[in-house]
Amino acid sequence: MRNIKLTIEYDGTNYHGWQSQDNALTIQDVVKKAIHTLTGEECVLTGASRTDGGVHALGQVANFLTNSKIPADKFSFALNTLLPDDIVIKKSEEVDMDFHSRFSSRGKKYKYLIYNSRKPSALLRNRAALVHLPLDVEAMKKSLTYFLGTHDFSAFRASGSDIKTSVRTITGISLNEISSMIAGDGENGSKLLELEISGDGFLYNMVRIIAGTLIYVGSGKLKSDDIPSIIESRDRSRAGKTAPAHGLYLVEVYY
Amino acid sequence: MRNIKLTIEYDGTNYHGWQSQDNALTIQDVVKKAIHTLTGEECVLTGASRTDGGVHALGQVANFLTNSKIPADKFSFALNTLLPDDIVIKKSEEVDMDFHSRFSSRGKKYKYLIYNSRKPSALLRNRAALVHLPLDVEAMKKSLTYFLGTHDFSAFRASGSDIKTSVRTITGISLNEISSMIAGDGENGSKLLELEISGDGFLYNMVRIIAGTLIYVGSGKLKSDDIPSIIESRDRSRAGKTAPAHGLYLVEVYY
Repeated sequence: MRNIKLTIEYDGTNYHGWQSQDNALTIQDVVKKAIHTLTGEECVLTGASRTDGGVHALGQVANFLTNSKIPADKFSFALNTLLPDDIVIKKSEEVDMDFHSRFSSRGKKYKYLIYNSRKPSALLRNRAALVHLPLDVEAMKKSLTYFLGTHDFSAFRASGSDIKTSVRTITGISLNEISSMIAGDGENGSKLLELEISGDGFLYNMVRIIAGTLIYVGSGKLKSDDIPSIIESRDRSRAGKTAPAHGLYLVEVYY
Repeated sequence: MRNIKLTIEYDGTNYHGWQSQDNALTIQDVVKKAIHTLTGEECVLTGASRTDGGVHALGQVANFLTNSKIPADKFSFALNTLLPDDIVIKKSEEVDMDFHSRFSSRGKKYKYLIYNSRKPSALLRNRAALVHLPLDVEAMKKSLTYFLGTHDFSAFRASGSDIKTSVRTITGISLNEISSMIAGDGENGSKLLELEISGDGFLYNMVRIIAGTLIYVGSGKLKSDDIPSIIESRDRSRAGKTAPAHGLYLVEVYY
């Protein structure tokens, strides 16, 4: 028996998220089915992050146990021939039997893309959240450091989640204007913003609520230095709206 | 009667190109139908470039005549509410009655995206051509200047096209590694290359054949300084393969 770790890129547009559910197409189910076709085995495929519908991944990590004799690094090539082209195994490797993609994780990195433009974009429509109002990027940047460090992030957690502690540590956060494949689209003043956040773990919808709160800061509904009191309040209603799923990317899982 | 100029962005993935054809969904038809719904008029919608199926546009230009009283700049907003989200009118404006999107054009700018990686990308699958073999980008760059200027580009023209002259002038060409929304995908050594080409006009498939020829140079099948003799030969079989449609973007049309 071997433990195989997969690093997976996916375009989440056509899926109801990672996690298996009845009567809905999920990434977990599609990858499990490809493994079954390849090995003849029914496996338990554990993902590091249960990404929501529409959320993308550059480096989701999942692992499964197998008796198959296929060399570990060949799983990626073999599975890619069986998977639809919006799910790609970037890497496959053998890991210790006690490796668990979720519980062994020391942290994660996400990014969130915001397309700030008066007009929508055909090419970014499922890849970045559209914000019409011009954003004050400097104000957004000023608020970033308040998120750094260890805090009770209850104000940035979707209600209804029942996790024991809402204390998390954010180890890195940045916001930059990036050029994009649609650079040169001729739309005056439009820009693509990339928010990157790393931390030891994230509450349900936490990155999307932070993104939504930064959008509030950028559009003047909140001030940069409102952030500390919002965090301290632990009151979800004080933070911004949950930004849409399709702007979110799971970039990397740290072990 | 007024002449309205539209600047259009589209994701070409789900269309059989710009130009109307029987029994196939095209961008021209979809935009015409939206104009009909808005104005009640059957119009002739002329596009600057007849992009092929799968080819994208950041700034396709089209124009039509109308008796509608809708203010010119409002067409974009009104049409966007009627169009699918993979076609977006970025701008609408009134132009002189003698403006013709194709015949008035002084030139165009295209770009071609190449994803050079051992593994495919889920997020770039319809946005960039995948090249597995590692590309020598410096060799590709060295060959660029040979394309500049006025040449008979018969060697870079799809056979079967019946245009009077195959002499064209390329006014600008560059190749750069760009960061992409999938930067940080963890795939060692993978890169996204952006080829930009401007010129007074392009023969059928010319940009895709130039891209394919540069890929040959990058992978060692041709040398940088083979380009002048290939141009001089006017022999299509001496140039590289036509690179796939989905890496091509019509960036801008100059008037």
